[in-house]
Amino acid sequence: MQRALSVSRMTGNRSTFPEWYQAVVREADLAENSPVRGMMIIKPWGYGVWEEIQRDLDRRIKETGHVNAYFPLLIPLSFFAKEAEHVEGFAKEMAVVTHHRLRAVDGKLEVDPDAKLEEPLIVRPTSETIIADAFQRWIKSHRDLPLLINQWANVVRWEMRTRLFLRTSEFLWQEGHTAHADEADARAETMRMLEVYRAFSEETLAMPVIAGEKPENERFPGAVGTFSVESMMQDGKALQAATSHYLGQNFARAQNIRFQSAAGELEYCHTTSWGASTRMIGGVIMTHGDDDGLRLPPAIAPRQIVIVPILRDKPEDAEVLAYGEALAKALNALSALGERVRALLDVRGARSADKRWEWVRRGAPIIVEVGPRDAAAGQVTYMRRDKLRDGEKIASHAVPRDTFLAAAPGILAEIQANLYADAKALLDSNIRSDITSFEALADYFGAAVDEDEGAAFKGWVRAPWSRPTGEALEAVDARLKALKLTLRNIPLDQQPITGPCLFTGEPAAEEVLIARAY
Amino acid sequence: MQRALSVSRMTGNRSTFPEWYQAVVREADLAENSPVRGMMIIKPWGYGVWEEIQRDLDRRIKETGHVNAYFPLLIPLSFFAKEAEHVEGFAKEMAVVTHHRLRAVDGKLEVDPDAKLEEPLIVRPTSETIIADAFQRWIKSHRDLPLLINQWANVVRWEMRTRLFLRTSEFLWQEGHTAHADEADARAETMRMLEVYRAFSEETLAMPVIAGEKPENERFPGAVGTFSVESMMQDGKALQAATSHYLGQNFARAQNIRFQSAAGELEYCHTTSWGASTRMIGGVIMTHGDDDGLRLPPAIAPRQIVIVPILRDKPEDAEVLAYGEALAKALNALSALGERVRALLDVRGARSADKRWEWVRRGAPIIVEVGPRDAAAGQVTYMRRDKLRDGEKIASHAVPRDTFLAAAPGILAEIQANLYADAKALLDSNIRSDITSFEALADYFGAAVDEDEGAAFKGWVRAPWSRPTGEALEAVDARLKALKLTLRNIPLDQQPITGPCLFTGEPAAEEVLIARAY
Repeated sequence: MQRALSVSRMTGNRSTFPEWYQAVVREADLAENSPVRGMMIIKPWGYGVWEEIQRDLDRRIKETGHVNAYFPLLIPLSFFAKEAEHVEGFAKEMAVVTHHRLRAVDGKLEVDPDAKLEEPLIVRPTSETIIADAFQRWIKSHRDLPLLINQWANVVRWEMRTRLFLRTSEFLWQEGHTAHADEADARAETMRMLEVYRAFSEETLAMPVIAGEKPENERFPGAVGTFSVESMMQDGKALQAATSHYLGQNFARAQNIRFQSAAGELEYCHTTSWGASTRMIGGVIMTHGDDDGLRLPPAIAPRQIVIVPILRDKPEDAEVLAYGEALAKALNALSALGERVRALLDVRGARSADKRWEWVRRGAPIIVEVGPRDAAAGQVTYMRRDKLRDGEKIASHAVPRDTFLAAAPGILAEIQANLYADAKALLDSNIRSDITSFEALADYFGAAVDEDEGAAFKGWVRAPWSRPTGEALEAVDARLKALKLTLRNIPLDQQPITGPCLFTGEPAAEEVLIARAY
Repeated sequence: MQRALSVSRMTGNRSTFPEWYQAVVREADLAENSPVRGMMIIKPWGYGVWEEIQRDLDRRIKETGHVNAYFPLLIPLSFFAKEAEHVEGFAKEMAVVTHHRLRAVDGKLEVDPDAKLEEPLIVRPTSETIIADAFQRWIKSHRDLPLLINQWANVVRWEMRTRLFLRTSEFLWQEGHTAHADEADARAETMRMLEVYRAFSEETLAMPVIAGEKPENERFPGAVGTFSVESMMQDGKALQAATSHYLGQNFARAQNIRFQSAAGELEYCHTTSWGASTRMIGGVIMTHGDDDGLRLPPAIAPRQIVIVPILRDKPEDAEVLAYGEALAKALNALSALGERVRALLDVRGARSADKRWEWVRRGAPIIVEVGPRDAAAGQVTYMRRDKLRDGEKIASHAVPRDTFLAAAPGILAEIQANLYADAKALLDSNIRSDITSFEALADYFGAAVDEDEGAAFKGWVRAPWSRPTGEALEAVDARLKALKLTLRNIPLDQQPITGPCLFTGEPAAEEVLIARAY
């Protein structure tokens, strides 16, 4: 199964997947580029999606025993030098604060050269180093462990080529940081949070994922093990939705995070970190969007049911509005997917047809129209965003108001399930495990193509490999790069190995996932 | 009425109010200084308070028709030059990003001189300019108005002398930004949000305030009118808890925010902005803290009821834990103050007496102890943080479990009301309106004293004035500054004027509030 998306309906005659993506972001009013290179403005509808994501993921993070805290935005340069691999591996494109004052000269503002900082400060690209410094002060005894902290924050990584949500110089995320008395406990935490991300992606974002361990060359700088959940976009590419790292004692040794054990010994902690970001919104768009725009899983739709009143500047408008208001109120008193329903009566002064299409493009799961006839007959007319069309026709349903109220929570749950099922079908039917040689792999993916030129749909490949390391792994990576491919992860859920290593011909140790990726 | 606070109980023998404040922040485990000068780490309990503040204030902001969005952290330097008064008046102590890359030289990290930005970027001290730039793009027609946006964000203002929560180089806040078709609508918005802050301060923070307009010299740079809510701390000083600004057409003209009116004319919008920050947590501490530490209004307590099990490393511990767990579950199923109760069973492995005192210092509204005898008898022993002591004795109450469950929501509501009533009594009985000359004012407040040396308690003064402007106002300001006093605001709720202007001797126009302030 593949998808044949086009942007023609929404935006005229452009047809590549990246153009379609940009069109959805714009037409669903999610975000836009700002005057600051690479930084986005998240518009109210997009931010509303982020608020729902935050609320649900925050609940899961707290249910697993973590608490939130907040650490400084700016980190002294010297902190980055403490963990050697972290320095080495981390991209050095960061925003550097060097001065702390402006001055006005001849009515113009400029940087005051007298206000140079003794030590430059880095706008946090991630907070391992400054949180490790706090842990070093906070942790004294085994009784202080495990220490389970999460932070919701903005981070900055200077990116050269940016794309809204997917890669921006500033993004919003949560970053978990924990310290443990031993490896077993820290590894259990790493896997627990990977499972939180898996469940969150599948249950809340309706985005099926494959969880696994990253090969050595894709590890977070300073990590002993990096795990990810990978999701298939509708162009067949992989999107890493979240990562969870076991950091061993590397950061603990670099920053002296020690505790007194029950036996009275001073020992280094084992630490973890894990994160997910606004990038997930890009994943939601590329998983669920269609030719008409965005389709939002009800669990993260800021408004799950939008009521558009059909107004005609006539006296009966008041009746329609009152009818719509009562309907919104009745819907908001219901529960769906374990929470209060989020319904809205859209009273803005625009044409109702325009409003309806706006909500279609924005991906509101259910759109209801009420006109004078509906109000008089006590009925509603609704469309489902997951089943918007019947052929080329819009599928709208007129039902008695009470029937709709009784059915609405179930319809929302059904839409959530349908979006997941569609995405799961795409994933399941587009992972090949019958490719047995590197040549066959190269054949399948074809010559490297520029993504903006509209590559043909290709899924993923699950292939046996011998888990090479060091230079042998670098050689594999280079061969894949030439095909614009990457190793995604080694799935936790392994299938029986079917042959020798695709790269070395040696006996295979396990299966690895290969794909083009964001 | 005054308070005689001491820190002796908590922290030994220190006795000034600032020392007491620092001790509460530390002992209640709210925040600490970070290695980055002037920037704080908000620890989990302090951040939990912020989360409750956010949740409640966010609800109020949304109920008044606003939506959240997110704008870039970094703002081009040139944007600050657009609104002249804004440039002139705003403190120029800001964090300036000048480079976008580090490099490793001889194994050391340094700023890469080749990665200098063409235009410096400022870490936002506030977002008027970059949001105005977006509004200019978003607003086309009167149908787009009013545009009602809020942002939750971190901001940086380089501060020389910092104090946890009260003045830090980085702080968290919400900033509202709105655009309107005419002055009346923008002014109504300004006052609506002032009222939101008043209600939030009094109902949620249990912190009574006086709402009023700032005199001209205290206006936000670029504003036509600035309004504030001012609260009295237990040392008699004023804390500005939040501000709301009517910006006129100043930012609209500077950044070309125009709309086509219904009549087809191109007109400049009228804009507003309004904000409240983590500074409010400092206000809560200085309003409700006592000799034993923090006292939290239940509405913002991350845990309203904490159950400390008395464990003895004996077999009956299991029974005590099961009893405590069932009690926490039963409490969490109740509602108080319009929300689910937030109860916690503290199972950490520390001595129960230590845990009890930790929760006293942290200000948990109700602390429950359950031991083997309680479990066997089906009773609980609890203390209320608002009435902790009976003389020097701790006032603890043993009651049947079911009695406690039935009473708990009411007790939480009572604690919320009591904390407010205490603070209101302090405010009401410490505003003098009988001072009729500047000399009497100087006499009352005495010579200027350094706050760290422990000034005697002084309240506020409400005095008639002629509302001088320009140089005359500057002269008033200078005379007050010599006494370490400031004009706080001109209360909306005016009382009959009792005499001529305290400063000029001219007929008075209204009453103004004078106080020492944070």
